[in-house]
Amino acid sequence: MRGTMLYAPFDIRFQELPDPVILEPTDAIIRTVATCVCGSDLWSYRGITPFTEPHPMGHEYVGVVEEIGADVTGIQPGQFVIGSFATSDNTCPNCRNGAQSRCIHGNFMSTCQATSIRIPLADGTLVPTPDQPSPGLIPSLLTLSDVMGTGWYAAVAAQVVRGGTAVVVGDGAVGLCGVLAARELGASRIIAMSRHEARQKLALEFGATDIVSERGDDGVEAVRELTKGIGADSVLECVGTAESMKQAVRCTRAGGSLGYVGVPHGVELNGEQLFRALIGVRGGPAPVRRFLPDLITRVLEGRINPGKVFDMTLPLDQVAEAYAAMDQRRAIKVLLQP
Amino acid sequence: MRGTMLYAPFDIRFQELPDPVILEPTDAIIRTVATCVCGSDLWSYRGITPFTEPHPMGHEYVGVVEEIGADVTGIQPGQFVIGSFATSDNTCPNCRNGAQSRCIHGNFMSTCQATSIRIPLADGTLVPTPDQPSPGLIPSLLTLSDVMGTGWYAAVAAQVVRGGTAVVVGDGAVGLCGVLAARELGASRIIAMSRHEARQKLALEFGATDIVSERGDDGVEAVRELTKGIGADSVLECVGTAESMKQAVRCTRAGGSLGYVGVPHGVELNGEQLFRALIGVRGGPAPVRRFLPDLITRVLEGRINPGKVFDMTLPLDQVAEAYAAMDQRRAIKVLLQP
Repeated sequence: MRGTMLYAPFDIRFQELPDPVILEPTDAIIRTVATCVCGSDLWSYRGITPFTEPHPMGHEYVGVVEEIGADVTGIQPGQFVIGSFATSDNTCPNCRNGAQSRCIHGNFMSTCQATSIRIPLADGTLVPTPDQPSPGLIPSLLTLSDVMGTGWYAAVAAQVVRGGTAVVVGDGAVGLCGVLAARELGASRIIAMSRHEARQKLALEFGATDIVSERGDDGVEAVRELTKGIGADSVLECVGTAESMKQAVRCTRAGGSLGYVGVPHGVELNGEQLFRALIGVRGGPAPVRRFLPDLITRVLEGRINPGKVFDMTLPLDQVAEAYAAMDQRRAIKVLLQP
Repeated sequence: MRGTMLYAPFDIRFQELPDPVILEPTDAIIRTVATCVCGSDLWSYRGITPFTEPHPMGHEYVGVVEEIGADVTGIQPGQFVIGSFATSDNTCPNCRNGAQSRCIHGNFMSTCQATSIRIPLADGTLVPTPDQPSPGLIPSLLTLSDVMGTGWYAAVAAQVVRGGTAVVVGDGAVGLCGVLAARELGASRIIAMSRHEARQKLALEFGATDIVSERGDDGVEAVRELTKGIGADSVLECVGTAESMKQAVRCTRAGGSLGYVGVPHGVELNGEQLFRALIGVRGGPAPVRRFLPDLITRVLEGRINPGKVFDMTLPLDQVAEAYAAMDQRRAIKVLLQP
C-alpha cells in the first residue's frame, strides 16, 4: 500500500509502505475511502512538537472493511465504517463512563493518510453505516472521525443549552464544527471569533449569529458588549494556545462553562482566576466514539453538513501539498482521496 | 455593640465598636443569634494572608431583623433570617444565572463575629424562616450561611449524581458538609479522606461509606483500589492547597468532575493533565444564596443536621479562644453565642 510519512519539519512524503496485516484478533483492515489533514498534524509538521524518527501521519478516516480478526463480531467485510481518531474497546470502565478517548486498552490512530489502515479494537472503534453512503455524504462522514466529533464535545463540555449564549474561539475546522454543534444543541446566540472572511462566511452558514473579528482585549470587549456585559454562558476554546485560552476564560460569564479541545501547548489554567469567576472547565481529546451513532444519523438525515469545512480536495498522493496549503492557511481543511 | 477585630496574626480582640446603622435604603440591621469561626478565617489569623490594618472578622451569621432600610420589602423586623457570606441583590444577571457570589452589586461579609450586623442588599441576601426556629436547629441553620452551602456547592460542582462515587478531600467543616451533601444528592459510595478520629466518625455519621486516612500517593492508591482502579466520578476538594488539589485531581476518574471550594492558595491547575484525563473542574466562593431555600427546608424538616460540625460552643466574648482552638485543631468548628 501507499501512505504518508513525515521525515522532518515540512518534509512530507507519500510512499510505498508494507501492507497492514491483522496483528490482534480484534483488528480490522480497512481500505481508505477518504482521509484528511488535521490542524493538530501541523504541530509536528511545523516542528513545534519535536520528533526524532520519520513516522506515519493521519488519524481521520472512513473506509470499507476488507478483513477482520477472529474475534471481531460487530462489523463485516464490505461494510462502510467510520471510526474515532482514538481507538476504544467500548467496554472498559472508562468507555462505559463515556470517556472512550481514555479507553484503558485504547490508543491514538496515526497511520491513516494511507490507502489501507489497520484498526485496533475494531468492534469498539468502528461504527458501520446502514448502507454504502452516497459520495456526497463522504466529506461530512469523514469529519465525524475527529473535527465534528471534537467540536461536538467542545459544545457538550461547555454545557451549551437550548436558549443559551455561546462563543467559539478559533475558526479552524474544529471551531467551525463547534459553531454547528452549538446550533444543534440549541444555543440562541452563537458568537464566532474569526478574522478570515471565508471562515466567517462558513461560521454564519453553520449557525453563528455574530462574528467578532477582534482578538485580545478588543475581542473580549466585543463579546461582553454582545452579552449584556457579562460574558457568554458557554465558551468553546478550539485553538490550544495560552493566548486563546486566556481569551476564552475572559469571554465566559460568572458561573459559565468553558470547553477546551485545542490540544494544549503551554496552557496553564489559573485556578484562582477560574475560582473567583466560578467558571467550570472541561477539555480533552474528544471521546468521539460516544457521539458517533448520533452524529452519523444527523449526517445521513441531512440535518448537518460539516463536510463543508473541506475547502480543498486533493488526490492522496498530493498529501504534501495538502499540508502546505493548510500550513499557509490557503485551505481550512483538505480532504484526500486515495 | 461589641465585635471581633484581628489586630495582628494570632491577636484577636473582642471589643466595643460603633453600632451598625442603615447606610443604604437596601440595608438591614440584624441582632446576631449565632455566629462562628470559619476555616478560611485562619488564613489571616495565621498571617498567611497578609494584612496591614486591624479589621473586623466573621462572615457567618443567623439573627433577628432589628431594622430595615426604606427599600427593603422582603423581610420584616422580628423575622429570623439566614444569609450568605456573600451579599447579593438576587436580581442582576449573575444572580439570575445562579452565581450569586459574583453578584454585580455584591460583596463579602466581614463583620459578623459581633452582636449586631449591617446586611447590605438585605432583600436579596437574607432568607427568613417561616417561624422562629427552635434553639436546637440554630447550629444547623448557621452552617447554611457558609460551610453547608459551600459543601453543597462542592458536590454540585463535582456533579455528584445518584448512584455515583464521590471522594471528599479535606475533613474540615466544609469537607464534612460535602460528605452530607453527596449523601443527599444520592452518591452510593462516599470516600472521606481524613486522618482524625473525631472527624472520621462524623464523616461516617454524615454518610461516608469509606474512610481513607492515607495522603499523597498512598491516599490516591487507596481511592483507586476502592473505585475499581479508575478513580471517582466526583471529587470534592475542600482544602485549597496545591497539594490537596493535586491529590483531588489524581482521585478523579477519566471524564469525572472535580469541585473545588477550598479558597485556593497558590493553586495552579495543570491544563494539560486535566485535558489528558478529560476531567471537568469548577470551583469558587459558593453561591450559597442559590441553595438557601432548599437547605433551610432540609434542616427544618430534620433531613440534615449539619450543625454537628460544631464540636465546641463558646460565648462570643471568648472568640479569641475559639480561633486558638480551631488553629490548634482542638475543635473542628466553634459556634459563638452573643
